[in-house]
Amino acid sequence: MTALEQMGAKAKEAARALGKAGAKKTAALELAAAALWDRREEILNANGEDVAAGEAAGMRPSLLDRLRLTEERIAAMAQAVREVAAAPDPVGRVLSGEVRPNGLQLQKVTVPLGVIGIIYEARPNVTSDAAALCLKAGNAVILRGGKEAFRSNQAVAEVLRDALEAGGLPRDGVQLVQDTSRQSAGELMALTQYLDVLIPRGGAGLIRSVKENAKVPVIETGVGNCHAYVDASADLCMAAEVVYNGKCSRPSVCNALETLLVHKDIAEQALPLIQSKLAEKQVELRGCERTRAILPGITPAREEDWETEYGDYILAVKVVDSLEEALAHIARYSSGHSEVILTRDYQAAQRFLEEVDSAAVYVNASTRFTDGGEFGLGAEIGISTQKLHARGPMGLGQLTSTKFLIRGSGQVR
Amino acid sequence: MTALEQMGAKAKEAARALGKAGAKKTAALELAAAALWDRREEILNANGEDVAAGEAAGMRPSLLDRLRLTEERIAAMAQAVREVAAAPDPVGRVLSGEVRPNGLQLQKVTVPLGVIGIIYEARPNVTSDAAALCLKAGNAVILRGGKEAFRSNQAVAEVLRDALEAGGLPRDGVQLVQDTSRQSAGELMALTQYLDVLIPRGGAGLIRSVKENAKVPVIETGVGNCHAYVDASADLCMAAEVVYNGKCSRPSVCNALETLLVHKDIAEQALPLIQSKLAEKQVELRGCERTRAILPGITPAREEDWETEYGDYILAVKVVDSLEEALAHIARYSSGHSEVILTRDYQAAQRFLEEVDSAAVYVNASTRFTDGGEFGLGAEIGISTQKLHARGPMGLGQLTSTKFLIRGSGQVR
Repeated sequence: MTALEQMGAKAKEAARALGKAGAKKTAALELAAAALWDRREEILNANGEDVAAGEAAGMRPSLLDRLRLTEERIAAMAQAVREVAAAPDPVGRVLSGEVRPNGLQLQKVTVPLGVIGIIYEARPNVTSDAAALCLKAGNAVILRGGKEAFRSNQAVAEVLRDALEAGGLPRDGVQLVQDTSRQSAGELMALTQYLDVLIPRGGAGLIRSVKENAKVPVIETGVGNCHAYVDASADLCMAAEVVYNGKCSRPSVCNALETLLVHKDIAEQALPLIQSKLAEKQVELRGCERTRAILPGITPAREEDWETEYGDYILAVKVVDSLEEALAHIARYSSGHSEVILTRDYQAAQRFLEEVDSAAVYVNASTRFTDGGEFGLGAEIGISTQKLHARGPMGLGQLTSTKFLIRGSGQVR
Repeated sequence: MTALEQMGAKAKEAARALGKAGAKKTAALELAAAALWDRREEILNANGEDVAAGEAAGMRPSLLDRLRLTEERIAAMAQAVREVAAAPDPVGRVLSGEVRPNGLQLQKVTVPLGVIGIIYEARPNVTSDAAALCLKAGNAVILRGGKEAFRSNQAVAEVLRDALEAGGLPRDGVQLVQDTSRQSAGELMALTQYLDVLIPRGGAGLIRSVKENAKVPVIETGVGNCHAYVDASADLCMAAEVVYNGKCSRPSVCNALETLLVHKDIAEQALPLIQSKLAEKQVELRGCERTRAILPGITPAREEDWETEYGDYILAVKVVDSLEEALAHIARYSSGHSEVILTRDYQAAQRFLEEVDSAAVYVNASTRFTDGGEFGLGAEIGISTQKLHARGPMGLGQLTSTKFLIRGSGQVR
């Protein structure tokens, strides 16, 4: 058995206990939240070593910022765990049930998925966020974080493992992969005997690699090439506000806008208005030829601009002839995350809602609302952009499976 | 573009029309059902060629029987399509919805999965059964049947394609892969750009191959190593009836029993009773040592007997010390399909229901009930034994995904 197979076997064993742990899970998570704060020095010291190593290796400032923990960030991590602890238990809910004509009592109930693998990059808060959600849903979790954050992740994971044990649950409910080589990621993706699902959390490159290579079932999350389409009938002031919010309120996240499509009939009014609003944050526009005829100073858009999730203050802009052309552009380039139409036209709104094939489709509201909390689903482990099992914000409910329970009195067929 | 990529592109295009086809789908399926019967000669001729080629190649009688169509079987295929046509449309259902505090109107609605691939073996009825379910749920389908049934599948697929066209829908909603080589199966498993899900229907070898090699999301179906556990407190007459039904009513199907576990305290009474009941169908028993001490004439069970889905009149039998040992045996060897406890003990029943991690868990009833129709879910495309997306009988509802629709009035975050 390899080290990872041993982890898998331990996780499977731990999952059996977690699956029936009920309120013990809540208690253990509350202990974990308290311990994250109580043991913040230990975590900050480990994190300090990671940050120092990152600085020495010339890590980019934006990555260093993601890596760095502070007392405030640890308090936020603890608070997130506390909120997950307080959520209703997603396990054991009866989703449907009936007595069949032959007297069989049939119920469909929620159960944990089992063992969940998480592959993630440089943010150490994912360690506690993801583990808490998996545990609350009765799952064991195998975490494989980036090597830049290994010491931090290890410190956080130990706090969680101690809390599980203190709460009377198996500490192997949370395990951190010790080998952060590329090879260990590959091995985790092939751990079909033990992993029920693998969830990658990170950039497009990581997601693509997992999707290409995994033999275990994967849930794709977080790639967001999101579009706003300003229809001919749009309220242009509203359009400018919604586009500004979508692009500028937090450009690095997956529900931020990346491409703006504008109907030709209002392009001459809409584009200068939107441009001047976006200028407040010095957003760089990259436009098609017709856009540049109206906004002459901007960069020309190339084919790759339609495909890119910038994660930055950059927006691709295209003038389209019709709603059809907007729908076709979105069908071709969208990652299936979130799209919005700005319109006052009932039929255009209905058609956009029906035909856009994305996890979240909006009329007259910012795509930035695609979020578990904003949707009233609680904390999320990611935004699924695939169609199987979960689509959109993945909360506790999506970390469960179901089974059928059938109570009989000797029925045969 | 390869031939399969072209198929994928056509399927994706067809899926857009099917996704909003509403009642047109029903009409087209009714046309298809009528045409299957009207064009039975054409189908029977094609099938005759397949059967003749199979006989010439020395195909086993049981496989020839699966391959062979008759007027009666075509009538049953048409009737199955008619029933799917009559089912409620699974697309466009509002699963949940609320107005958020900021006024956003949020709805979670069902939508088609998109493009579904089906890989299957020698039964030509799968062509119409699977296609009808996929179409009713608004999906395009790419069928890749076994080469033994190619002419039959082709004839059935043409009937369906003509019916789609006659019903005003794109005929490429159903496409049959023309190349039945191993290579085309591999290519289909890698068609990530076009396929939303791949469902293998067939034996354990096919399922394993798809699971190992597919890059597109897969739903595992139909491998059933099902267990009955006769508890110390069981009603022994009921136990004998339920075991007999589970093993003998249709041994070739996935919900048939393969292993019997018997508590040691009642083994001496239960085993001879069950043996004599199973003798009505000449069931071969393969027992552990303690079983053989009670039933001396039977074959010794080897390790592989615990792992095998016989699909035949054979049953592996083991005496266990306790409910714990039964649960551990099931956890180790079960394929996660269906298991039953025979008991009069409340606590034993509860524990079995809670701890057995299978799609369907029974108390005092035959595992043979694990079926879409028996569960009141309508026709099914298979029994999922995995935990993501669908578990247990997969009906129309499991051939859909969801999306969030959000109607706003200019909300920003």
